[in-house]
Amino acid sequence: MNVKVIRYILGYVLKLEALFLILPCIVAVIYKETTGFYYLFVLILCGLLGFLMSRKKPDSFVFYLKEGCIATALSWIVLSLFGGLPFWLSGEIPSFVDTLFETVSGFTTTGASILSDVEALSRCSLFWRSFTHWIGGMGVLVFLLAIVPLSGGSHINLMRAESPGPSVGKLVPKLRHTARILYLIYLGMTILEVIFLLAGHMSLFDALTTSFGTAGTGGFGIKNDSMMSYSPYLQWVVTIFMILFGVNFNAYYLILFRRFRKALQIEEVKYYIIIILVSIGIIFINIYNTVIGSADALRHASFQVASIITTTGFATTDFNLWPQTSKTILVLLMFIGACAGSTGGGIKVSRFVILLKTVGRELNSYIHPKSIKKIKIEGKPIDPEVVRATNVFFITFVIIFSFSVFAISFEGKDLITNFTAVAATINNIGPGLELVGPTQNFGGFRPFSKCVLIFDMLAGRLELFPLLILFHPAVWKDLFFHRSGAGKKHS
Amino acid sequence: MNVKVIRYILGYVLKLEALFLILPCIVAVIYKETTGFYYLFVLILCGLLGFLMSRKKPDSFVFYLKEGCIATALSWIVLSLFGGLPFWLSGEIPSFVDTLFETVSGFTTTGASILSDVEALSRCSLFWRSFTHWIGGMGVLVFLLAIVPLSGGSHINLMRAESPGPSVGKLVPKLRHTARILYLIYLGMTILEVIFLLAGHMSLFDALTTSFGTAGTGGFGIKNDSMMSYSPYLQWVVTIFMILFGVNFNAYYLILFRRFRKALQIEEVKYYIIIILVSIGIIFINIYNTVIGSADALRHASFQVASIITTTGFATTDFNLWPQTSKTILVLLMFIGACAGSTGGGIKVSRFVILLKTVGRELNSYIHPKSIKKIKIEGKPIDPEVVRATNVFFITFVIIFSFSVFAISFEGKDLITNFTAVAATINNIGPGLELVGPTQNFGGFRPFSKCVLIFDMLAGRLELFPLLILFHPAVWKDLFFHRSGAGKKHS
Repeated sequence: MNVKVIRYILGYVLKLEALFLILPCIVAVIYKETTGFYYLFVLILCGLLGFLMSRKKPDSFVFYLKEGCIATALSWIVLSLFGGLPFWLSGEIPSFVDTLFETVSGFTTTGASILSDVEALSRCSLFWRSFTHWIGGMGVLVFLLAIVPLSGGSHINLMRAESPGPSVGKLVPKLRHTARILYLIYLGMTILEVIFLLAGHMSLFDALTTSFGTAGTGGFGIKNDSMMSYSPYLQWVVTIFMILFGVNFNAYYLILFRRFRKALQIEEVKYYIIIILVSIGIIFINIYNTVIGSADALRHASFQVASIITTTGFATTDFNLWPQTSKTILVLLMFIGACAGSTGGGIKVSRFVILLKTVGRELNSYIHPKSIKKIKIEGKPIDPEVVRATNVFFITFVIIFSFSVFAISFEGKDLITNFTAVAATINNIGPGLELVGPTQNFGGFRPFSKCVLIFDMLAGRLELFPLLILFHPAVWKDLFFHRSGAGKKHS
Repeated sequence: MNVKVIRYILGYVLKLEALFLILPCIVAVIYKETTGFYYLFVLILCGLLGFLMSRKKPDSFVFYLKEGCIATALSWIVLSLFGGLPFWLSGEIPSFVDTLFETVSGFTTTGASILSDVEALSRCSLFWRSFTHWIGGMGVLVFLLAIVPLSGGSHINLMRAESPGPSVGKLVPKLRHTARILYLIYLGMTILEVIFLLAGHMSLFDALTTSFGTAGTGGFGIKNDSMMSYSPYLQWVVTIFMILFGVNFNAYYLILFRRFRKALQIEEVKYYIIIILVSIGIIFINIYNTVIGSADALRHASFQVASIITTTGFATTDFNLWPQTSKTILVLLMFIGACAGSTGGGIKVSRFVILLKTVGRELNSYIHPKSIKKIKIEGKPIDPEVVRATNVFFITFVIIFSFSVFAISFEGKDLITNFTAVAATINNIGPGLELVGPTQNFGGFRPFSKCVLIFDMLAGRLELFPLLILFHPAVWKDLFFHRSGAGKKHS
């Protein structure tokens, strides 16, 4: 294994983190907050460490999927460890596990919090907390690819390990070029949302943090009641932008290059829209009697559906009090998740489309045993390897899910809390139901359960395998016995 | 499609049902119950219809998987429809949907009941209710194969469609021979249990019905409190026999032919035993403080674990009141289920072994991309088609499961009730948690939800696809437009 290149990448990630940390420092200066010093300290620490680690270029940049996965998983862990330091050092979050939970929740765009009183945080911490969503939404390694000249080597393996869903990276042959365009779309849409929010008389600070949370489909609120106290206009703006950020970014890429017809043909986006509309419809009817006025019912239904399917996790109402059918739909949406190639989490619409088509094909094979049909997406047959990988992903997902629910059951909390706590973290959503409902928080869990949920958040964001292989004995052996040489073995 | 051979098989199934119905008639005579006349009436009806339908032999016995599946699915529906008539005609179960629910629950060896007062039933009805478990446990078509000379044609397609799990039918080349031996083992073990129960001073009637429920891994009790009021000895006997009936019958087959070493090598059975022991251990520790005495804790833990993993569904205690970890383990066991080739339901241990090995292989492929390993069971590589089919089975299972939970959510019952109600029916267990816990029943559901759960019970028992293809438009067209000729098309 090429350990040197992993160290080099981690160094770059730390330098990037130092760069990102400039922003909360600026916020601290503006609001005259002394907490800013902790951010400055961590900034210097990251910069120094990053400089030392990436000073010596590795001899070889050859890079395989294994290295890609390990570099990605370690990057996210390192990012979170250092990113959480200011919370811990300043005492704003006294427990270290809590700090890690909150920061992992931020970077993985989960938005599950252990804080019961968010408003007690300093401005710079609130800003940093929301900004981690924005960084995590598009992926820090994609960002790295966009700006850093990692000469030679197979970048695709980095991108493949980090991108949500199986489709990104096939847009243009030049990966760095793609990564840059994706980040520009991301930035452009975030700015657009800020403008729309400012137009609704939101303060600049609120507009920025809310937009970060929406763009990364994160969901950390800066108020204790999430989005409940904002005006209907602002809630609608956020609803629409949540849905937009859950769309496969390929669509925007195609629109940008004026290939409108192709953009409209993306099958995943069609299903995504259909699922959203049907869910809103059913919930609207279901909650109509419990909410005053149909406008309110429609707004709350739309907001919560958009928030859950895109795995953002903002809330305008306590949906834990909704009737059973609505809650069941939300739980199902938690798993479906957003489109592949968006900033959203969950299993992804495209995977479900493939899974459903797999079942359909199996059914057909009973009727017409000799006609072996390939599964098609957008009229084109897809690689059987993609189908197989999707099936395995789903199975792995369910197994990790079940183990996690079991692992946190020792606390004696009710099954719905445990079930939705895992669902809300592994799908990177944020709130679940009952004790982890939108008006509650994850602070009530014991450290062991929090560690399980931290694992779930990372597993969900990194699409399971890049994180799982970190636990493979062969990888440990490689990392510690430092078998260098650019992956000559097993490659 | 060869519709004539399906009609012919259904005729035979009805004649068999008439034969089975002799038993409750005898019970009615012994206990001098007038309800017996309804059984006699249905017996004559089934016999007559069966005679008419199977009088004319079909021109061809050629038989493909499609016909096998359809014949199997229709057989189970016909069996349940007619088998439930006596309950309905006698007024013991006034609602028709309830009758169907109870009978499907019987034949599919689910054991979920809509009756709140089981003891109010006549003796002959109680006997028939438990006897349906015994019939359904081994499968009525396997029975058919064992006794009926279906000359020519591919019997394997009938057996493949009905047997639980993917392994039965490969024991000996002669299928009829295998089927007979399996039924003899089944019969022998049932008699053995009856003897052990009689030795514990259980009445003959109770011993017979309890053994039927254990052998078929059904779980209908003849008392309102299931097995709670029986002595610890009797509960232990049932515990052990439940576990025995959950073992892959291949093991008994091999033992019968003195191939002990091979019997001990069956990987699935090993995992099955390990899962049982670990579960009992954890639950024992978990409930130790809530139960008086460690003997009681061990007995209750063992009984409930055996009852749930084998999908029998008897209860010696209200496990809905157990601590959270124990309940979570039971819910997980619901899905794991018994061994393939046993009378138990659930997803089956062997499938889980394959699924876990699939995940393991995927993980390895990230580390060693070029070494493509085959998945091995008992040291031998298994057919990739089996792996694929297992994956698809699992996916289909989860999709049906999710749709069902959604479909019954309209009633507004809590999520745990809905979740475990579907889990308890699709895995053919019986009781779930909360409103469908072991001291509760399914009578509180509305007719629509009952229909959904009836579908789930059948889908679970028939391993999904044989039931699902009944809903395929191509099959409807074939059945109604009667395109005869021995499946010349698409075959």
